[in-house]
Amino acid sequence: MIVLGIDPGTGVTGYGVVALQADGAVSLRECGIIRTNPGDPLPRRIREIFEGVGELLDRHEPQVMAVESVFQGKNARSALTLGQTRGAILLAAALRELEIAEYTPAEVKISVVGRGRATKEQVGFMVRHHLRLARAPRPDDAADGVAIALCHCLAGPRSFGPARPDGRGLRAHP
Amino acid sequence: MIVLGIDPGTGVTGYGVVALQADGAVSLRECGIIRTNPGDPLPRRIREIFEGVGELLDRHEPQVMAVESVFQGKNARSALTLGQTRGAILLAAALRELEIAEYTPAEVKISVVGRGRATKEQVGFMVRHHLRLARAPRPDDAADGVAIALCHCLAGPRSFGPARPDGRGLRAHP
Repeated sequence: MIVLGIDPGTGVTGYGVVALQADGAVSLRECGIIRTNPGDPLPRRIREIFEGVGELLDRHEPQVMAVESVFQGKNARSALTLGQTRGAILLAAALRELEIAEYTPAEVKISVVGRGRATKEQVGFMVRHHLRLARAPRPDDAADGVAIALCHCLAGPRSFGPARPDGRGLRAHP
Repeated sequence: MIVLGIDPGTGVTGYGVVALQADGAVSLRECGIIRTNPGDPLPRRIREIFEGVGELLDRHEPQVMAVESVFQGKNARSALTLGQTRGAILLAAALRELEIAEYTPAEVKISVVGRGRATKEQVGFMVRHHLRLARAPRPDDAADGVAIALCHCLAGPRSFGPARPDGRGLRAHP
């Protein structure tokens, strides 16, 4: 199973593509960030993120997109801005009838590090450990994207439910 | 000039298509709502709204999409949900390199009714008056979509700026 993990942000969206083998082994395919220009109009930035995520989906053909769900304590304005970006990301997957899973930041940390309040450094360290990398992914947003994909591989599915009309639910990974 | 006005909502998105002639006369081309099923997964609902707005854009080929901007006083959770819907709507226009204008509810009411705190009934009455309709558009969400398009025709542009790479800004209507 291939999982695309996404840490949505209007300025920087982090992503990680992780492959889970039938024996439970995980490996990193790709990670990085989609960065938009704060000086550009919001619709153009949303479009760039939509097209960037779409390009990843088409290239890696994952079975699942795992997305970080909202932080608590956001104010309404920043929640609206993040929501607009998130809507474009969800749409990129929904148009491809892809399963979408959601995890809170705490769920990602518990799954990857074992602690809901782990630091960025601890997340980076454990991502590196699980995937047997020479170093932690950089920048932190890319590591966060990888951690979300890894969380889906390690923790089992937590799905929005299918975007498909046939109503078939998300299956547990092998 | 053709203007598509949108009142975004995850459950019900209202829309109105208004034509503005060179002599300042306005006429209604179409109005209605895009309704999604609350029981469906959010990505599917976002996709339906994206495809519904896209179908309107392709059919009417407006020069501008005018969208209601956010209410104040929204909490973070409802702002996030509305933001996700709004992101899909903005994206439908950005993918077609369409100009996008934003108006607050108060701006729409001032422009259409003359009062920032006008009631739904007053908005419906003035929409009917401006467009010389036999009756006000129904339901209220459709009338709100029409009012937003009308606001753009009456009030002049308030643009996000172009989604196009050529950087050409929104022109004032004739």
